Amino acid sequence: MKHGGNLSEAVAQFGGAPDSWLDLSTGINPWAYPVPELPPQSWQRLPDRAAERSLIEAARMAYRVPAGVGIAVAAGTQALIQILPYVMTGGAVAIPRPTYSEHAAAFARAGREVLPIGLDALPSGVTHAVVVNPNNPDGRITKRDMIARAARELDRFGGAVIVDEAFADVAPDCSAIELCRELPIVVLRSFGKFFGLAGLRLGFAIARDDLAGEIADVLGPWPVSGPALAIGRIALSDQGWIAATRERLAGQADRLDAVLRAADLDIVGGTTLFSLARHRRAGAIHARLAQQQIWTRRFDHAGDLLRFGLPGDDTSLQRLAVALMPRSTAR
Amino acid sequence: MKHGGNLSEAVAQFGGAPDSWLDLSTGINPWAYPVPELPPQSWQRLPDRAAERSLIEAARMAYRVPAGVGIAVAAGTQALIQILPYVMTGGAVAIPRPTYSEHAAAFARAGREVLPIGLDALPSGVTHAVVVNPNNPDGRITKRDMIARAARELDRFGGAVIVDEAFADVAPDCSAIELCRELPIVVLRSFGKFFGLAGLRLGFAIARDDLAGEIADVLGPWPVSGPALAIGRIALSDQGWIAATRERLAGQADRLDAVLRAADLDIVGGTTLFSLARHRRAGAIHARLAQQQIWTRRFDHAGDLLRFGLPGDDTSLQRLAVALMPRSTAR
Repeated sequence: MKHGGNLSEAVAQFGGAPDSWLDLSTGINPWAYPVPELPPQSWQRLPDRAAERSLIEAARMAYRVPAGVGIAVAAGTQALIQILPYVMTGGAVAIPRPTYSEHAAAFARAGREVLPIGLDALPSGVTHAVVVNPNNPDGRITKRDMIARAARELDRFGGAVIVDEAFADVAPDCSAIELCRELPIVVLRSFGKFFGLAGLRLGFAIARDDLAGEIADVLGPWPVSGPALAIGRIALSDQGWIAATRERLAGQADRLDAVLRAADLDIVGGTTLFSLARHRRAGAIHARLAQQQIWTRRFDHAGDLLRFGLPGDDTSLQRLAVALMPRSTAR
Repeated sequence: MKHGGNLSEAVAQFGGAPDSWLDLSTGINPWAYPVPELPPQSWQRLPDRAAERSLIEAARMAYRVPAGVGIAVAAGTQALIQILPYVMTGGAVAIPRPTYSEHAAAFARAGREVLPIGLDALPSGVTHAVVVNPNNPDGRITKRDMIARAARELDRFGGAVIVDEAFADVAPDCSAIELCRELPIVVLRSFGKFFGLAGLRLGFAIARDDLAGEIADVLGPWPVSGPALAIGRIALSDQGWIAATRERLAGQADRLDAVLRAADLDIVGGTTLFSLARHRRAGAIHARLAQQQIWTRRFDHAGDLLRFGLPGDDTSLQRLAVALMPRSTAR
């Protein structure tokens, strides 16, 4: 299982109607930002530059992007990951493991050497480094100091640090955005996860003006849909919703962890959008949950780990708790 | 003016509220396919593989894509144009002029030599060729024989022909899709223009399975939004709407041409989605129309040409007719 979220795979393997499944395989907020009525023009017209600029201004405020730092808009962070190898040219790229696998895949596809090395141990010969912060799937936070030091080091070779902050909306203090003005750092922000609108496809690359401009050039004109421009602008400006959602997610993550611990799983990491749990029989638990149409995330690199997204209500949380009980008790 | 459709530029230069403008600067169908109610999941969930496969099946039927030929889905043809230089590697690329300028821009940005040469005169040393068919802005049709011959020639060097069929929905007989099985040809199809939903961002690359697979790999997972998957599938399956729209566009294009001819403009090309007109005072006509908040498309390469998209109703057509009258008569 390469990614979470592909419920059709679960349905094909274990049956049931898609609607009957409880999908906990992603780290997407289950309480989506309400999609407003959209003017027909946002579907019909080519996305307008002015609308893109308004979205960028909203992102600048929401992410506290300093002056001199630019923002490139893309149809999801994934679209940025795909093209970054063609902007961040040069030699080898350091990407620690485990982490979101698409960074290494994209650089490797572009013919680049990828070394499984963290920011703390960059060998000479490395041009760029990638860090997911907080990391997926373990939630590990890399300190800003460490990112700054690595960026300074790579700067000498014309390199940069890519910081994928896909889950940083729930841990804003760890963000490296304030470093972007002085240092070669490209921060990626995902709109869909925190706002619960992963189908919208919207993400941002934040970097020094010149570098953000290069990224925007490679993405080309009209990189995102009219609805994404409109909804993104409204949602990113909604400070009340953002603050309330951070709290609500934190509360639900606590409840999720309690359910997992009660079922004898060890919480070994996570953010308030997902929890990473360890159990020596994780494979069997994954299968048992799937038979009860609860879809969780396994990992090729570690057979004893499972990742759980947040159930969106008490019924779902309860359903998970019951499904986690050993068979003898549950039946 | 690099592209049509950027009404905010017109507003900045000539004033007026965006809604008061008649935008004829694009070749987008003014009668958009009606956007259906969307299930909340299409916004909230990561676009599912099964939904992508359904869209691809609908595109296969609509575009008559033969077996053995694959389809890669992208957030608009433009997104494909941006990444093709990284799939179609090798030497120089032949792209005739005038044509849609983004093809040459994308290959040049990727460091590739671009030669302004048509399919009929490919010199040795060229790896790939691009043809827009029907061409934008002149509507010129390149015969399938010519495309096949060029593809056979380039095949010897591991090259291919990229055929941008952005406007081929209104001229389906010219399509090169049936050639894709035997020859190295990548056909690009745009969803937004014919279906009048340019804000949706949806396009397709159609090529031999292996080549289509490579393109999909470079685009990565979740390349288009959930709404685009759902709306695209429904619209591409709506054969009745497609046939009726082709006729309706043809009728309106005739009426547009009559209005332009009455104002002493020469129709020198076009499709039923736009007309290209020549007038020795084209610049003055563009300015006069803009002062009356009608936005048309000029060209850097030819000061005597203007391109007109279709007015969406009789009132707009009449408004154009009146605005085209010389001042003395109109006032």
